[in-house]
Amino acid sequence: MSDLLRPASAADLVTEAASLLEVLRADPPLTHCITNSVVTGFTANVLLAIGAAPAMVDIVGESGLFAGIASGLLVNLGTPTPEQREASFEAVEGATASGTPWVLDPVAIGALPVRTALAHRLAEQRPTAIRGNASEILALAGLSAGGRGVDATDSADAAIDAARALASRFGSVVAVSGPVDLITDGERVLRLANGHELLTRVTGGGCALGAVMAAFLGAARARATPPLLAVASASLVYTVAAERAASASTGPGSFAVAFLDALAAVQPADIESAARVETAAL
Amino acid sequence: MSDLLRPASAADLVTEAASLLEVLRADPPLTHCITNSVVTGFTANVLLAIGAAPAMVDIVGESGLFAGIASGLLVNLGTPTPEQREASFEAVEGATASGTPWVLDPVAIGALPVRTALAHRLAEQRPTAIRGNASEILALAGLSAGGRGVDATDSADAAIDAARALASRFGSVVAVSGPVDLITDGERVLRLANGHELLTRVTGGGCALGAVMAAFLGAARARATPPLLAVASASLVYTVAAERAASASTGPGSFAVAFLDALAAVQPADIESAARVETAAL
Amino acid sequence: MSDLLRPASAADLVTEAASLLEVLRADPPLTHCITNSVVTGFTANVLLAIGAAPAMVDIVGESGLFAGIASGLLVNLGTPTPEQREASFEAVEGATASGTPWVLDPVAIGALPVRTALAHRLAEQRPTAIRGNASEILALAGLSAGGRGVDATDSADAAIDAARALASRFGSVVAVSGPVDLITDGERVLRLANGHELLTRVTGGGCALGAVMAAFLGAARARATPPLLAVASASLVYTVAAERAASASTGPGSFAVAFLDALAAVQPADIESAARVETAAL
Repeated sequence: MSDLLRPASAADLVTEAASLLEVLRADPPLTHCITNSVVTGFTANVLLAIGAAPAMVDIVGESGLFAGIASGLLVNLGTPTPEQREASFEAVEGATASGTPWVLDPVAIGALPVRTALAHRLAEQRPTAIRGNASEILALAGLSAGGRGVDATDSADAAIDAARALASRFGSVVAVSGPVDLITDGERVLRLANGHELLTRVTGGGCALGAVMAAFLGAARARATPPLLAVASASLVYTVAAERAASASTGPGSFAVAFLDALAAVQPADIESAARVETAAL
Repeated sequence: MSDLLRPASAADLVTEAASLLEVLRADPPLTHCITNSVVTGFTANVLLAIGAAPAMVDIVGESGLFAGIASGLLVNLGTPTPEQREASFEAVEGATASGTPWVLDPVAIGALPVRTALAHRLAEQRPTAIRGNASEILALAGLSAGGRGVDATDSADAAIDAARALASRFGSVVAVSGPVDLITDGERVLRLANGHELLTRVTGGGCALGAVMAAFLGAARARATPPLLAVASASLVYTVAAERAASASTGPGSFAVAFLDALAAVQPADIESAARVETAAL
Repeated sequence: MSDLLRPASAADLVTEAASLLEVLRADPPLTHCITNSVVTGFTANVLLAIGAAPAMVDIVGESGLFAGIASGLLVNLGTPTPEQREASFEAVEGATASGTPWVLDPVAIGALPVRTALAHRLAEQRPTAIRGNASEILALAGLSAGGRGVDATDSADAAIDAARALASRFGSVVAVSGPVDLITDGERVLRLANGHELLTRVTGGGCALGAVMAAFLGAARARATPPLLAVASASLVYTVAAERAASASTGPGSFAVAFLDALAAVQPADIESAARVETAAL
C-alpha cells in the first residue's frame, strides 16, 4: 500500500451507505446527466430503479441553468458530440456556481483525441468525483495512452498512484472500477470487493454507476457526508444489487433486468449484511 | 367539474378502443417519431409490440417528406438538439400539408428555456393532440413555471382548466397523464383510471404513450374516429397492458419486459373487460 | 436460380461458423459502430453478449483513427446526423487505409433523400459487406424507390439480382435479410433458413446483425476466412440464437432478453446441430 494512504473505516462506510439509501429514497435527488447515446436509457432506468429522479439535459442554453437546480450532475464523455461538449462546460459552470456536486466519467480516453482533451479540460474544473476504469484513470493522470475502448486493460490496483495523484491535484474523489473497486480522496482509500462479472457484459454497467454516484452525492448534501463516503456508498449499493441480480440470472440479458429489480428492492439491511469492504493494506 | 365540460361516453370509448386496436394490427400505421435520445429504443419497441410500424426520422431534409407519407407523427421535446428542433418544424409542416395527425409532447418545459420556447412555437402549429403531465400542461398554458423535470408535481385534475384552455386555443385534444389520466377536446372530458405506478419507474413510460397516441390517430383515419376517442383509446390500451404487466412483475426491470409482452398480447376483449373509464363530474 | 450463381458449401459454412465463434470469444474483436440512436444500446449489448468488444465512436476527429485500430467497423445509416455523416466518411477512410473490414447498413433508403445519397456515396468506397432488407438492397442497386421505412416490403429472393449486381460492382458481400436470409459475393450464394419472426418485433434486430457481421469479419482476419463465409457465419450464429430465445419467450419483451442470454450461451456444437443452410437452386 502506498505510504501516504490509510484505509477509511469499513464500518463507517457500511453505516453511511445504508443511511444514504434511505435518504435518497425519501427525497429523490434530481440527477442531471450528460451522458453518451449508448447508455442514456439504461442510466435513467438505473436511477429510477434505485429511487433517484433522472433528467437528461444536454442542450446548450439549458444545461447550465439545470445544473444549478439539480442535486447532482454527471458528465460522461462516451459519445461527446459538439453540442454535448459545449453543454458540458456550461453545466460544470452552473454546478460550480451553485455548489452542485458533479462526477466526471472520462470514457475511453487515451487514444481518442477529442475526448481526451475534453477530459483534461473538464478535470481542471475540479470535479467532486472522477470515475473510470484503470486505463482511463491512468490516461487522465498522464501515465498511460489508455485502452482500446471502454475495456479496462489494467487492474484497479495498477491505478492507485494515478488515482491518488488526480485526487490531490483536483480535490476530487477518484473511483477506479474493477473486480475490486478502489476509491480514494488522496489521503484515505477504500477497496470494495462486491460486484459481479455480468455487470461488465451489460453496456452502461460502468456509466450508470457514475450517475448513481452523482445521485448519492446529491443525497449526501443534506447529511454533510464526506464525498469519499458518498461515492463509495453508491458503489457499494450498486455492486451489492449486482450480486443479488446475478444469482437470479441466466445470462447478460436476464441479468440487466434482474439488476433493475434488485436496485429497486435492495434494503439498507441488505447492504449491511452483504458488504465486503476491505481496509487492509493494498 | 368545469361548467363547460361534459363527459364523453365511456361505452363509446371502450368500443372504439377495441376496434382501433384491431384496425391498427390489421394495417400497421407508419408512426413517425422525433423523440428524445433516452427513450428512442423503448418507444420503437412499444410501437412494434402493439403492432404499429415505427420510424425514427429526425434529420433535416427527410423529416418533412416523411411526415407527409406517415400515418401519424410524434414530436417529443425531451432532448431537443438543434438538428431535431429544425427537423421538428419541417415535420410539422409536412404533416400539416398532408393531413397527418401529430402529437406534441412538451417534455419538462417550464424552467428550461430552449424547449419551452420551442413548445410554444410548435403548439401554434395546432397539434392534433398534446400529451404531458400536469406540470407540463400548466406550463404550456402559461399557468405555471413547470416542474423540476419530467416528474409531475401536480395531479392531473389540477391541470383541467389549463388543458381545456389549450384545447380551445389550438384545436387540440389534450391528454394529462397521472394516476388518473384526463383527456379533453375542450368540450368533453374523459377520465381513465387504468394504469400502474410501475409505469413511472421505467424511463419512457410517458414518452412512449405519446407515440402510441400518434399510432392510434393514424389508425383512426380510416374510421374517421374523433381524435378525442383515438387519443383516449391509446391511453386505455396502454394502461390496461400496464396493469396486466404489473401483475407479472417483481420490479421495474421485469415490468418493462412484461409490458412489451402485454402490449403484444392484449386483445380487444381484454380492453372491454378491464377498462375503468370515469365519466362522473370532476 | 440465377445462371451465374452457384451455391457455396453448406458444410463449409457450418464448420467455419462454429470455429469463428470460438475465435471471437478467445480474442474479442474490437467492433467499431457508427449506428443509429434507436439501437445503440441494444447493439452494444448484442456484441457484449456474443463475446465481442463494442465501441460506439461516431465523433469527427476520432472515428477515422479508431477505425484504423478496430477489428471491424459498422456504418449504419438509421439516424444520420450531420456529425455522423462526416464521421462515417472519416471512419471508412481509416478502415480502408488499415484494411479494417467494414459493413454498410443502408437503413430505410429509397424514399428518404439524405440517407439515400449518403448510402450511394459510401457504397462507392467498396464496403466489405452490405446488409439490408430486400427493399433497401433493391434501392441501393437503383432498382426500387425503397420501402416505407425499415420494413421489408419485398422478400429476400426478390432482391437476388440486385444483390448480385451490388456485389459485383463494389466487390462486397451482400446480405439480404428476410424469413430466409440470402448472402452472396456475386458468384456464390447461401440461403439461411434459421431465425424467428420475433426478431422483427424488436427494434435493432436487423441493425445489430450488421454489427455482429463486423465482429465476425474482424475475427475472420486471423483465419483468412473469405468474407462470404464470415458474414454468413454471423447470420447463422445470430439466427440460431434467435430460435433458441424464441422457445423461451412469451412476447417481444421477453424475447429480447432471452436473445441476449442465448447469444452468450450458444456453443459451436449448437450451431452445427441447428443450422438450416440451403444450397439448393433458388
